[in-house]
Amino acid sequence: VLQTDGIHCHALETERSSCFSVGQKFQLDDVIEAQQFDRDILSAIFEVARDMENIKKTSPDSKLLKGYLMATLFYEPSTRTRLSFESAMRRLGGEVLTTENAREFSSAAKGETLEDTIRTVEGYSDIIVMRHFESGAARRAAATAGIPIINAGDGPGQHPTQALLDVYTIEREIGKLDGIKVGLVGDLANGRTVRSLAYLLAKYKDVKIYFVSPDVVKMKDDIKDYLISMGVDWEESADLVEVASKCDVVYQTRIQKERFGERIDLYEKARGKYIVNQDILNVMPRHAVVLHPLPRLDEITVDVDADPRAAYFRQAKYGLYIRMALLKLLLVGW
Amino acid sequence: VLQTDGIHCHALETERSSCFSVGQKFQLDDVIEAQQFDRDILSAIFEVARDMENIKKTSPDSKLLKGYLMATLFYEPSTRTRLSFESAMRRLGGEVLTTENAREFSSAAKGETLEDTIRTVEGYSDIIVMRHFESGAARRAAATAGIPIINAGDGPGQHPTQALLDVYTIEREIGKLDGIKVGLVGDLANGRTVRSLAYLLAKYKDVKIYFVSPDVVKMKDDIKDYLISMGVDWEESADLVEVASKCDVVYQTRIQKERFGERIDLYEKARGKYIVNQDILNVMPRHAVVLHPLPRLDEITVDVDADPRAAYFRQAKYGLYIRMALLKLLLVGW
Amino acid sequence: VLQTDGIHCHALETERSSCFSVGQKFQLDDVIEAQQFDRDILSAIFEVARDMENIKKTSPDSKLLKGYLMATLFYEPSTRTRLSFESAMRRLGGEVLTTENAREFSSAAKGETLEDTIRTVEGYSDIIVMRHFESGAARRAAATAGIPIINAGDGPGQHPTQALLDVYTIEREIGKLDGIKVGLVGDLANGRTVRSLAYLLAKYKDVKIYFVSPDVVKMKDDIKDYLISMGVDWEESADLVEVASKCDVVYQTRIQKERFGERIDLYEKARGKYIVNQDILNVMPRHAVVLHPLPRLDEITVDVDADPRAAYFRQAKYGLYIRMALLKLLLVGW
Repeated sequence: VLQTDGIHCHALETERSSCFSVGQKFQLDDVIEAQQFDRDILSAIFEVARDMENIKKTSPDSKLLKGYLMATLFYEPSTRTRLSFESAMRRLGGEVLTTENAREFSSAAKGETLEDTIRTVEGYSDIIVMRHFESGAARRAAATAGIPIINAGDGPGQHPTQALLDVYTIEREIGKLDGIKVGLVGDLANGRTVRSLAYLLAKYKDVKIYFVSPDVVKMKDDIKDYLISMGVDWEESADLVEVASKCDVVYQTRIQKERFGERIDLYEKARGKYIVNQDILNVMPRHAVVLHPLPRLDEITVDVDADPRAAYFRQAKYGLYIRMALLKLLLVGW
Repeated sequence: VLQTDGIHCHALETERSSCFSVGQKFQLDDVIEAQQFDRDILSAIFEVARDMENIKKTSPDSKLLKGYLMATLFYEPSTRTRLSFESAMRRLGGEVLTTENAREFSSAAKGETLEDTIRTVEGYSDIIVMRHFESGAARRAAATAGIPIINAGDGPGQHPTQALLDVYTIEREIGKLDGIKVGLVGDLANGRTVRSLAYLLAKYKDVKIYFVSPDVVKMKDDIKDYLISMGVDWEESADLVEVASKCDVVYQTRIQKERFGERIDLYEKARGKYIVNQDILNVMPRHAVVLHPLPRLDEITVDVDADPRAAYFRQAKYGLYIRMALLKLLLVGW
Repeated sequence: VLQTDGIHCHALETERSSCFSVGQKFQLDDVIEAQQFDRDILSAIFEVARDMENIKKTSPDSKLLKGYLMATLFYEPSTRTRLSFESAMRRLGGEVLTTENAREFSSAAKGETLEDTIRTVEGYSDIIVMRHFESGAARRAAATAGIPIINAGDGPGQHPTQALLDVYTIEREIGKLDGIKVGLVGDLANGRTVRSLAYLLAKYKDVKIYFVSPDVVKMKDDIKDYLISMGVDWEESADLVEVASKCDVVYQTRIQKERFGERIDLYEKARGKYIVNQDILNVMPRHAVVLHPLPRLDEITVDVDADPRAAYFRQAKYGLYIRMALLKLLLVGW
């Protein structure tokens, strides 16, 4: 997760106002991993996303991608992510070719390589949004394709648009990214969203991160070491109430049953340990928010939903704007 | 099926001409069950459906829903119903997000509640057409969603757009609803279409209903009692020829094999008992029609198809117009 | 494969310039099998396909099929073919209703006949692109439907748009069809593409065909006899290097494992026998091309891809233009 390869990173170091002018080409050819984005590019993408929030059915911008075709090539189903991208494309006037379950269907089942599939599909579309079960698949696709590739999750690897929307949500809800205190809660070992989020937060100043997780799914050392190298202050805690009382953001995640194999007993124990409920809300600051990448099971109780600080459904909506922004940037530029 | 809850029923009792004026909001926020519709609303919906029949590719109305996004959220596949809704939306210039098999796919499989899924999908679309395997699911979705929900069938529960299209077909084919004689044939115990149709027909005057079914799948007492309470004349008959000779409408249904479990013998016996064939056509009045919700197996023989009184494929087409009318009414009003 | 029935063949014998004028109805109501096409119609379709190559996002022709609805009714999945048709329709401004796996889903699973399904779906759309697992299914659909049917493959039967795109690719890449030398390589017994291609090539003058295949999957006598009857020169060869050195086109195909049942040994032996690799490229003329219907496994090595004579991905793209041309011709005419 933490290697950067320089291929996709051409972010400009010059001042914002001069470097992203309207009509200019986006610096990135593809969206493959969280490591592509530096602070300037994040800030510029968020500005475009903000514009996207204001597009109405009758706005001229609702025709921005008219005539463009996006193919959603999903080797494993993810209805939520697919619908978010397809909605984004349509909200900008573009069209969609859908493949919901490319793995068991058709050419892949006959043994065709990913590269061959990409070379064919790029003949039919202008951009490919791909979800795959293998880490690194999106990078392979991007190396082959002559059109932009967006990684919509490749196995245990990356899910960069989720990482972007998480950071965007924090900026929109809290109003800043520098100086924030964030509690990452739940499955920190396997959750790619919290790993990517920690990685991106390190780009901001004076951030403090609290890790709150059952022992079996603690945050791994690579991220901890990375945060240290970036000068980010972090600590582990077993006390969610205390952490929640100090944080701007409580980012809860689902304990993923599928990671525990036959040890259902360990799963059940881990699952019940840190729940966001009324007790947590009671100690949280008034301006703070609860986030969650969804789907949620019972790690946030449903009575929390009515509290204005429950921001996880707004977070899903912010994901739509981030995806609109990326589609716009990759297809027509700034 | 027969409970009304008052939530979705705000039908106006005043005169037609004054209550449904162009641009006015539709009285219903959602389409959940046949019980929502009173005679005035039915009549007004049918008038809109009639307008829909005349929309050409070049009509301004073919852009009526331009910029609107409909999500088809199908937890069990129903290609026919899904295509009908998607065609309706596109014929009005709207766009579609499709999910053909949401049950086994993705978030639902991970244990997400229907309510959470709805809260997410409503962020991506303007209206949700939902099919579900559980009775009451559509009502739960409507209670959660801030956008309109159309029930496209929820398990053994309701399938209100089928009920509406059945009544519309009778009006279009026979020219009236008051005073008609209708024979309901086949699986009357399990078929939600005949149950809803009987319910809606009770809203009209001087209707006579004949029930013709194998003993194991007779019409249940709740509907019979309801018809009595509404003053609707009905009788049971074992003689399809005699009934057909008297009816304006012979509504045939499929005997559903899946309802008989391992009693294939009972299924085979029930299935062959009442067949609409040339013998039935021979006794039917010239103005009468044969209807069927489709798919049909051999309960209507294929040689019937060529007779102008075979109206079941026209019925499917009327379904398109009813769905266009509902989409228009829920999204932009009268 | 080789029967012609006269039903779909109304090709005009008069001169080209007078018979295909703009706005005139296409001679064919449906696209069911390769045998429908004579040389004049092929040539005219290719001319339209050529126009399609030049349509840009802003061309008026990108709105040519605005308001038209295409239903893709796929009884077995074929992502490649489906995406190609859907891209073609959208590139012309038309809309799409998708069914990716109609066989296991819904009405067909309940026992509905193909004819009934077609009668319903034709009520929802303006043209149906159908893929089916049974030979002859497309013809049955066309006999029922009042709207155009395009056969996108019916089991071991026909796949006429593949045959058209193969011939179009040869014309585009080699510049002519008369007088060409073509090597057909691989599974010639089961591959419907090579059978249809041989059939169509017989319509041109002075064509020479070489058959190069493992013994177990040799070209069948019906095609050989047909070529003789048409005066087409052909021969069988076991020496791919020698054939490649003389041909304008080397058309490689996949050995289909599924045809060998439990005889994996025979499959493995057949599979490795004729591989297109650098050795083959080395002897091929500079103007020659390698074609393949895709998906490919290892019968063309990946190091061939970089050679400009590797035309198989361009071939997939030509398929898009052929399908655009057919959709235009069937829906709005010449």
